[in-house]
Amino acid sequence: MTTAPSDLPPPLLVDRIVGFVGTGIMGASMAGHLLDAGCVLNVHNRTRSKAEGLVARGATWHDSPEGVAASSDVVITMLGYPVDVERVYLGGEGGDGIVAASRPGALLIDMTTSSPSLAARIASAATAGGRTALDAPVSGGDVGARSATLVVMCGGDEAGFTRAVPLLRRLGRSVTRLGAAGAGQRCKLANQVAVAVGMVAWCEALSHARAGGLDPAAVQQVIAGGAAGSWALTTLAPRALAGDFAPGFLVKHLVKDIAIALETARETGIDLPGLETAARLYEAVVTRGWQDEGTQALARLYPGW
Amino acid sequence: MTTAPSDLPPPLLVDRIVGFVGTGIMGASMAGHLLDAGCVLNVHNRTRSKAEGLVARGATWHDSPEGVAASSDVVITMLGYPVDVERVYLGGEGGDGIVAASRPGALLIDMTTSSPSLAARIASAATAGGRTALDAPVSGGDVGARSATLVVMCGGDEAGFTRAVPLLRRLGRSVTRLGAAGAGQRCKLANQVAVAVGMVAWCEALSHARAGGLDPAAVQQVIAGGAAGSWALTTLAPRALAGDFAPGFLVKHLVKDIAIALETARETGIDLPGLETAARLYEAVVTRGWQDEGTQALARLYPGW
Repeated sequence: MTTAPSDLPPPLLVDRIVGFVGTGIMGASMAGHLLDAGCVLNVHNRTRSKAEGLVARGATWHDSPEGVAASSDVVITMLGYPVDVERVYLGGEGGDGIVAASRPGALLIDMTTSSPSLAARIASAATAGGRTALDAPVSGGDVGARSATLVVMCGGDEAGFTRAVPLLRRLGRSVTRLGAAGAGQRCKLANQVAVAVGMVAWCEALSHARAGGLDPAAVQQVIAGGAAGSWALTTLAPRALAGDFAPGFLVKHLVKDIAIALETARETGIDLPGLETAARLYEAVVTRGWQDEGTQALARLYPGW
Repeated sequence: MTTAPSDLPPPLLVDRIVGFVGTGIMGASMAGHLLDAGCVLNVHNRTRSKAEGLVARGATWHDSPEGVAASSDVVITMLGYPVDVERVYLGGEGGDGIVAASRPGALLIDMTTSSPSLAARIASAATAGGRTALDAPVSGGDVGARSATLVVMCGGDEAGFTRAVPLLRRLGRSVTRLGAAGAGQRCKLANQVAVAVGMVAWCEALSHARAGGLDPAAVQQVIAGGAAGSWALTTLAPRALAGDFAPGFLVKHLVKDIAIALETARETGIDLPGLETAARLYEAVVTRGWQDEGTQALARLYPGW
């Protein structure tokens, strides 16, 4: 493990010509911090309108990820699904992908939550072409992206990591390398395993209380500070208790992450019965049509919510 | 919900002649705080030696729970299992039980984690006999008992609760009434549901990381501060990672609590698939002979621990 010290100011930028592909809710905030830090920014997004705020602040629009890559020393991607990551990096749909299109010596950083094996494939392809690719998924959501307090979990070449730190420290309060290519994704998946099963924990606890005739909001207040306590019980349970199922983090994105985590678990030969239960429950959430709600919508599977 | 204000000093004691039945690890610390507060203390414990420290400090030993009850205005019990609670309160094994043996007008407070329906039966029997019985289980464990920082969850008559608060505030940092008799037990069970399923969450997260070749201690450090965070991930996971499975809270006691929670869930007609999974996993922990370890021994079911 290598952690960039977070009690010091971020190191000075060396790479200043930065491309950003994927300027959705999180990506737009993150790219904005790089503009603030003095980067020359090249941007592309599937839906152009979501990049317009950055363009108005001086970023240069490109019609393709490859156009961004050809003009940048470092390319950061923040996409939706592994299939998007594969297409943007390795090509398809008319593009050759940014591994091929980037400048020799370029540093490519994928911050999407994606598959460890895909991250390893991209890193190999990058190395073979004289580029460096890192996987660097984050936790902290839209709020963390906005306030530059993300937790960044990196995998890949150590020299590449060292080169990436000055940029990544503009986006996150903690930047850690966990190992070789894919290790960042594996750490993020471990995070999502704890998130998914932890959601079941508070949903069932408060549902048990409610079914027994107690006021679940009173129970939440009593138990949140003790051994039953969790970030989710403190932060998400009150939203669900107030009938607020608006997304901080979307059900369908957690479902994607759970699927990758289960696949990775199978590849490494480990049984995770708790995660399998969480997967079945979140599948039921999707079946009811709540895939675009926040992950706290899990509570709606239980009576009374 | 009625919460005794915890930012003020505890109210003055009115009832000073207090009985304490069950002076094990937690009970002995709790009874000691009542001696510190100036109570006249009557004590009984199945194993007499565990009460000797209190007797040396001035408590009076009695050979039976009934003897304690006959000499006290308030009786507090801190026992092992619901079967012990039933025997001590309602009789059996040669005793008539403390409901019958206590003084008319006595206040009886059971702080054992036990069954809501048993708590309701005891409260009814007490009321019929001109006594008042509360259920007041706690969270915080041996550490909370020692430092008088327990969280006390009460059920029962409101006037009885008001009468109990000056004593209970000597034992806990928070004292809350959740409703009628049994409501304290229901709140504690909700707490245990979150505890049990939450243990599965971090065990599977760190096991996923380990199986993927990461250092699980590094992953714990990276993810504990974010959306995956919980008291257990911060407090118990490092013990398990260090190979320390010594009990803060015993596996066999959590298994008891899970069984009561599942039974209560069935009575109230609610399905808790996550808790059922946790129950199966903890049964496997017992099958391997680890029932006297701490609850973090759950991790030992997964490879590499």
